[in-house]
Amino acid sequence: MGKELYFEDVNVGDDIPSLAKEPTTQQLVMYAGASGDFYQIHYDHHFAVNAGLNDGVIVHGMLSMGWVAQMLTDWLPDWGLRKIDVRFSAMAIPGNTITCKGKITEKYQENGKNYINCDISCENQEGTKTVMGTATAELPSKG
Amino acid sequence: MGKELYFEDVNVGDDIPSLAKEPTTQQLVMYAGASGDFYQIHYDHHFAVNAGLNDGVIVHGMLSMGWVAQMLTDWLPDWGLRKIDVRFSAMAIPGNTITCKGKITEKYQENGKNYINCDISCENQEGTKTVMGTATAELPSKG
Repeated sequence: MGKELYFEDVNVGDDIPSLAKEPTTQQLVMYAGASGDFYQIHYDHHFAVNAGLNDGVIVHGMLSMGWVAQMLTDWLPDWGLRKIDVRFSAMAIPGNTITCKGKITEKYQENGKNYINCDISCENQEGTKTVMGTATAELPSKG
Repeated sequence: MGKELYFEDVNVGDDIPSLAKEPTTQQLVMYAGASGDFYQIHYDHHFAVNAGLNDGVIVHGMLSMGWVAQMLTDWLPDWGLRKIDVRFSAMAIPGNTITCKGKITEKYQENGKNYINCDISCENQEGTKTVMGTATAELPSKG
């Protein structure tokens, strides 16, 4: 994993290594149990359709955010992630391929510490963004 | 709860107080997480239909057995249940009303202890048995 990431090595415009996920109904049921979110739109096909979700059950938004966080923590030093802020812009469903992506948008120092801001997102196999947001991380310096 | 149950008070032919359950997809997802049984026939409608289950997802057999056990432990002294043995004779599905029933079939003493054997079952709202089996319990004596 890219844990040896230094402030001097990153630049505005750099891409974060992407992470692809293929959610299944089983993963959603496991997530329901792990999170305690047992809302039926995440596993009951008929409930979901009756709720107006024509494609059936949808991925928990917080699970999608978890994937973005995994992309970031796979890339950053273990202690580096400072802030993550997302909104859910489209639904993800089992059978989609969801790719988490990110790009560095700012690089700055504050109170003697080194920070980067990033745009982050998830998109499905058709390029529709399902999650959009920003993250802030602190990076070590080689100095 | 009928915890004050003595050997002298029960007779062959007595009914065990019944217990009715109305399984939901939510209960099955909760049971999946609690049991670790994530087989998709218990929550994924399309998977279940493709597996030949025309009515869709089915109740975990072991959850049905748990309901029978609950009927017994609601009725018996806390320490009384000695053995439970069931087979699954038909499928239960969310939306069914499943009634657990039992009847005392034998009453006997062995090594100074008091035992009863019972027939136990679950049946759906149409009277089809979904679980059938037997149980053995020990009861205290008033003497």
